[in-house]
Amino acid sequence: MAVANDIYKKMTGPGASVIRKMFEEGAQLKKVYGEDKVFDFSIGNPDLEPVQAVEQAVLEVANDRTKGRHGYMPNAGYTEVRQAMAEKTNFEQNLSGKPGTGLGEALTAKHIVMACGAAGALNSVFKAILNTGDEVLVPVPYFVEYGHYVSNHGGKLRTLTATEDLSIDITAVKKSLNERTAAIIINSPNNPSGKIYTKENMSDLVKVLNEHGKTTGRYPYIILDEPYRAICYNGKNPVSMFPLYSESIVVTSFAKNLSLPGERLGYIAVNPACKDVDVLVNACIFSTRILGYVNAPAMFQKVAAKCWNCDVDYSSYINRMKEITRAVSSAGIEFIEPEGTFYLFCKVPSNKKGDKDDFAFCNHLKKYNILVAPGTGFGCPGYFRIAYCVSEKTIRNSAGAFKKAVEDWI
Amino acid sequence: MAVANDIYKKMTGPGASVIRKMFEEGAQLKKVYGEDKVFDFSIGNPDLEPVQAVEQAVLEVANDRTKGRHGYMPNAGYTEVRQAMAEKTNFEQNLSGKPGTGLGEALTAKHIVMACGAAGALNSVFKAILNTGDEVLVPVPYFVEYGHYVSNHGGKLRTLTATEDLSIDITAVKKSLNERTAAIIINSPNNPSGKIYTKENMSDLVKVLNEHGKTTGRYPYIILDEPYRAICYNGKNPVSMFPLYSESIVVTSFAKNLSLPGERLGYIAVNPACKDVDVLVNACIFSTRILGYVNAPAMFQKVAAKCWNCDVDYSSYINRMKEITRAVSSAGIEFIEPEGTFYLFCKVPSNKKGDKDDFAFCNHLKKYNILVAPGTGFGCPGYFRIAYCVSEKTIRNSAGAFKKAVEDWI
Repeated sequence: MAVANDIYKKMTGPGASVIRKMFEEGAQLKKVYGEDKVFDFSIGNPDLEPVQAVEQAVLEVANDRTKGRHGYMPNAGYTEVRQAMAEKTNFEQNLSGKPGTGLGEALTAKHIVMACGAAGALNSVFKAILNTGDEVLVPVPYFVEYGHYVSNHGGKLRTLTATEDLSIDITAVKKSLNERTAAIIINSPNNPSGKIYTKENMSDLVKVLNEHGKTTGRYPYIILDEPYRAICYNGKNPVSMFPLYSESIVVTSFAKNLSLPGERLGYIAVNPACKDVDVLVNACIFSTRILGYVNAPAMFQKVAAKCWNCDVDYSSYINRMKEITRAVSSAGIEFIEPEGTFYLFCKVPSNKKGDKDDFAFCNHLKKYNILVAPGTGFGCPGYFRIAYCVSEKTIRNSAGAFKKAVEDWI
Repeated sequence: MAVANDIYKKMTGPGASVIRKMFEEGAQLKKVYGEDKVFDFSIGNPDLEPVQAVEQAVLEVANDRTKGRHGYMPNAGYTEVRQAMAEKTNFEQNLSGKPGTGLGEALTAKHIVMACGAAGALNSVFKAILNTGDEVLVPVPYFVEYGHYVSNHGGKLRTLTATEDLSIDITAVKKSLNERTAAIIINSPNNPSGKIYTKENMSDLVKVLNEHGKTTGRYPYIILDEPYRAICYNGKNPVSMFPLYSESIVVTSFAKNLSLPGERLGYIAVNPACKDVDVLVNACIFSTRILGYVNAPAMFQKVAAKCWNCDVDYSSYINRMKEITRAVSSAGIEFIEPEGTFYLFCKVPSNKKGDKDDFAFCNHLKKYNILVAPGTGFGCPGYFRIAYCVSEKTIRNSAGAFKKAVEDWI
């Protein structure tokens, strides 16, 4: 075998990314049928261009002539950039406490590690915290790549069934906790469901983790994967967890909120109230170095520091959301009402044979030039995900195709 | 323990990067004593600024307004960028053969995977090829991070003693080869010695690997880590290995030749003559995705495609090399004559007690504001490395400090 057995199995087996395959197939289909004839809802690649403030920041940084600006910096990133990300986190997590005040303590630059996107951030965190055989919990539905990120570093992802409304099932958490539980991933708003977990649900989670910690001495980390935090509807926001639970870590990026997914910029923010905060931060820095990220890309670190708090108008995502829910509704497809992100999680309509197979349905949709991701990839067979970060025109034009496809299916 | 045991051990034990620590200490010392009073030879952070053509490319890309330019692209990178890197590799590896011609076949875009620097490239390759317990050989002296890159993915780094002139000891290779040997890393010109391995030495290596392959059925990969390929002196060049051995892979970056280490851009180039070339390339792409790199940073991919073949004048490194060899010679320090890179590998002068301890000597040098890296980190106790990618003035001013330090040591 020319490659590692495990990798070969994963790349050819069901672990292969159907989403990525669709994304690449979509590009091919567009060449054949034309851009406007293909309804590519496969991937979360924001179609909004970066706003003017971002472009301005890119130009300023490109015109900078400071010596060493493309060179190495400390592995954790530029101090001034880390400082900006600390401010951002304090705002989002609602923190203002002075050093040593415990829960509620505000972050400074030293609590931030700049990362190669949220995916890089997650890998650095898992490398930093996982002993071989440790378990990481994640409620379904969840971003399929988590499984790889955890197993890369010797861990095991354990999925948790959700309640009917896709809240976190606290009983399921309780049952799954054991002495090997290193962390639980909370992705709110959630990819693929667009769900924002409620304050009550989150408080119940904290209670259970604290009880477990008191009994076993091991407090699992809550890893808050928050790349969609800024993209929420109707004034809702994900819960600020740092004031509620000390052993918490934010991983996030500028991929979705600033439309910069290809530039690979994100960061890790560690709760200053964390018991071993310095050791944990240093382990994240060390992992970032030895995993070969070395440091987050220099230029876009500076871009982010300049424009992280710029105004971005996400109303077009709301418009798209309305358009897509209209389109699938009129085709008779049921879905979870999204509270944020740019994803719609839908139920596969059952046909005469009672077939609700999501792979079969996604393949069926492909015949109508509709590309969507099967729910199995998110731990939810019988569902499929629509990434509606595409033009409103594409969405409107897809309505007929959805209708026809469902009629031919049921 | 807040973090993984293995990581804690590595980050606090001898595996901690002395070089990085020095680099960060150097920044502190400069604040205290002034930039020109600290002789910081700790890290390979090129002091030459990127040439005009690179700056021009950065500006062009920053001014580009093509839709989706900061978005996701296929995980392997932009096709046109991969095409440019294929051309670069064909030039460097002296390849022009048509598809299917075996050894000597030229690369096309499909043989390239864009990566987050050479460090990212190496991690992707090791993730792609290593089964747990597999071994990777490396001749000393070697870049200390290789050990982490290999063990990250379940492998074990086996170091090979070198001959007196730091050539590859073919007998040592022969002795170390076994059924678990997945690869050998060749870094030419070499960090830290500046050595370029000869054609004869490389041909002998190929012979031994071929013999081993014939006997065991497993042909170890030669992984050519070539970030310093462009920085060679006296018209010398590292051997083009692709025409000599099919199971070979180049990993490299634009960190050193274009002075862009902080931007994290590199690539993997797979020999088209490789037995399972498509599987290997796909495994590298898959690994790049699941390790969280996802793709190499978008903007700098395009920068590299625009200016990879621009003219860069490395003569100042030659001048620096002459200055530094003069400085250490007159202090009575012996060294390996560098044929490329910007490193000088020196012997620790033995003192009255016969003490040749490199850690002790490097700590001693620190008292004279000289920062260098101990040879133990490169697998060579009794040596130390000078990274002379600093201003000629710094080098000239260090001469007195070196002299005084050695006088006080011996």
